[in-house]
Amino acid sequence: MISALDLRPGPRLQLLATDGCARAGVFHTAHGRLQTPAFMAVATAGTVKAMTADAVRDTGTTCILGNTYHLMLRPGADRIASQGGLHRFMDWPAPILTDSGGFQVMSLAGLRKLHQNGVDFQSHIDGSRHCLTPAGSIQLQDMFDATISMVLDECTAFPANYETARASMELSMRWARLSKGAFRVRLGYSLFGIVQGSTYPDLRRRSADVLKDIGFDGYAIGGLAVGEGQKTMLSVLDVTLPNLPVDAPRYLMGVGTPDDIVGAVERGIDMFDCVIPTRAGRTARAYTSSGIRNMRNARYAADPQPLDPDCQCPACVRHGRAYLHHLFRAQEMLGPMLLTWHNLTYYQSLMQGLRLSIQEGTLTAYTARVRTAWRMSE
Amino acid sequence: MISALDLRPGPRLQLLATDGCARAGVFHTAHGRLQTPAFMAVATAGTVKAMTADAVRDTGTTCILGNTYHLMLRPGADRIASQGGLHRFMDWPAPILTDSGGFQVMSLAGLRKLHQNGVDFQSHIDGSRHCLTPAGSIQLQDMFDATISMVLDECTAFPANYETARASMELSMRWARLSKGAFRVRLGYSLFGIVQGSTYPDLRRRSADVLKDIGFDGYAIGGLAVGEGQKTMLSVLDVTLPNLPVDAPRYLMGVGTPDDIVGAVERGIDMFDCVIPTRAGRTARAYTSSGIRNMRNARYAADPQPLDPDCQCPACVRHGRAYLHHLFRAQEMLGPMLLTWHNLTYYQSLMQGLRLSIQEGTLTAYTARVRTAWRMSE
Repeated sequence: MISALDLRPGPRLQLLATDGCARAGVFHTAHGRLQTPAFMAVATAGTVKAMTADAVRDTGTTCILGNTYHLMLRPGADRIASQGGLHRFMDWPAPILTDSGGFQVMSLAGLRKLHQNGVDFQSHIDGSRHCLTPAGSIQLQDMFDATISMVLDECTAFPANYETARASMELSMRWARLSKGAFRVRLGYSLFGIVQGSTYPDLRRRSADVLKDIGFDGYAIGGLAVGEGQKTMLSVLDVTLPNLPVDAPRYLMGVGTPDDIVGAVERGIDMFDCVIPTRAGRTARAYTSSGIRNMRNARYAADPQPLDPDCQCPACVRHGRAYLHHLFRAQEMLGPMLLTWHNLTYYQSLMQGLRLSIQEGTLTAYTARVRTAWRMSE
Repeated sequence: MISALDLRPGPRLQLLATDGCARAGVFHTAHGRLQTPAFMAVATAGTVKAMTADAVRDTGTTCILGNTYHLMLRPGADRIASQGGLHRFMDWPAPILTDSGGFQVMSLAGLRKLHQNGVDFQSHIDGSRHCLTPAGSIQLQDMFDATISMVLDECTAFPANYETARASMELSMRWARLSKGAFRVRLGYSLFGIVQGSTYPDLRRRSADVLKDIGFDGYAIGGLAVGEGQKTMLSVLDVTLPNLPVDAPRYLMGVGTPDDIVGAVERGIDMFDCVIPTRAGRTARAYTSSGIRNMRNARYAADPQPLDPDCQCPACVRHGRAYLHHLFRAQEMLGPMLLTWHNLTYYQSLMQGLRLSIQEGTLTAYTARVRTAWRMSE
């Protein structure tokens, strides 16, 4: 249960420790506490693909991410609301963050039309016509009963010239203000703004200032992990994060590889989401303490060793690599199931290592060890 | 752990109770005790499709069935042996029964050639040529470390005229003798013979007599559930079972629906295997205490009730029907995962109901209740 004290109004990120720019904390929500830095597993259509909710919990995942675009089309926001909200529908009593739907809608090349008030688009499922507006997106997320809602924004395409990036950012800021106006304030529920501005430091700083001025419960960095490369991505964080409030969570959207996450945590990011561990798991790619292993590779066909001797997930404790290899060769569903379980466990144990080492003031040593292991990998 | 007493030589089916012709017992094996009547989940290629081994255990399943044809081709018997046997490979420390491979090979129309000493066939995976003989099949099953091995037989096609059925049965009996000769006797490991003879009572009786004469640890009824209909199937049991030893388990291969199982248990069958609960689970068909429900049906789209209020599986306890419907509509893997879990739980709770009511002498009342529920179903 959550106490009234945990949910007193105002910033709800309780910082436990810092190590350089990195922060370890606890974010208090209506659906329990989220230890940060946190990695959110992606549950696009109301399920983390190939996982039961119990299995997701077993990986150490606390917060999951639902996609408004997918959920609004199928099963629909009305349906989810009538089933008691997304938490109850998918049996996830812990925090759920939903995106605004904007990112997926913008990806519908040819099927969508952006205008000043929102986006008109056609469903990829049945071609039906819909419109997503800032207030409409917030209302959908409210119907889902999302613990954390995101403002509707335009994820600026990469690369963008300065003028395009500026205009796109200004549109996002206007939508951010409209989203805030439509958000129903409830204890333990949050609305996050999203910083845009492409790779232009002054636009990023300006965007952060505008959002701070509007005032949000948390601040996301959007428009990254879209092809700009890790170095550019981290440099955007370097110029943006100093302009954000210290006492609100910072969420780097759609990131990333373990190496991306380490670099972003070192700069002060608190939250992440990414399809990498789940998608890779379905395609036989395992993230381990000694790098990425493709379990379809013939080198594992007779290998009796555990996938990752450092891991306590069922794939590693109960089976050898030869079995995982066999499952993928035979196209058995258990292959994706076990490897998704493993990859999420790996990601969550990385986050735990980051949280602990920040609290112990040993982040530099920890990240060096993680990076060395990855450099030595195949 | 298993005591020496449990594995003394001789019949290992310990009868606990009978009710009419129905029997409740315990079959003692090198991998633990199997309560009968028992339903074995099918784990064709070393996995019960869409289920972790832990989940299969949670359904109440004790013994699973592996298919020699699939396992010999992929990953291969050598591979499984080198990984410590099938139990260890797939993390199933409880009993495993393997079939002989004959049934699948015979189904390879155009790719196989039957002769007096065995079957030549081509792999459906890569076209490679193989030969399955009685001794060869037993050796493969030994390499898998199967708890219960099956003799190689010819599953007589249905319908068959008398002369064809007789010749086919005689071939199976010759192979049964050769299989027995090749079987390596070990404490707690079993070899089962298979009664053939199509729908001809005298051939079935003759086949049972021959097998008894050779002497097996258990007796299977083969060549049924191939299109002859439930009434004919049960009448074959009526003429065959009196000719089989009382103190050995009787296994009806490839059967069946809940109704088939109830009828066969009433006649004295102890063991079953069938793909129905797992295959149906993957195609949205749920077996419940009130009949079969197709979860893709639009009537469930907004239904918040548990799939089966009498069931304790995660699909029923954690979710509503609307969620299961959504998962299948969205083609999410969790749909097949949850419904397979449910269907196996339903089958195992049926078996438990049969075992308990036999021990309590209330089988007639129990089966009447089960049949009434099914008649009332959609």
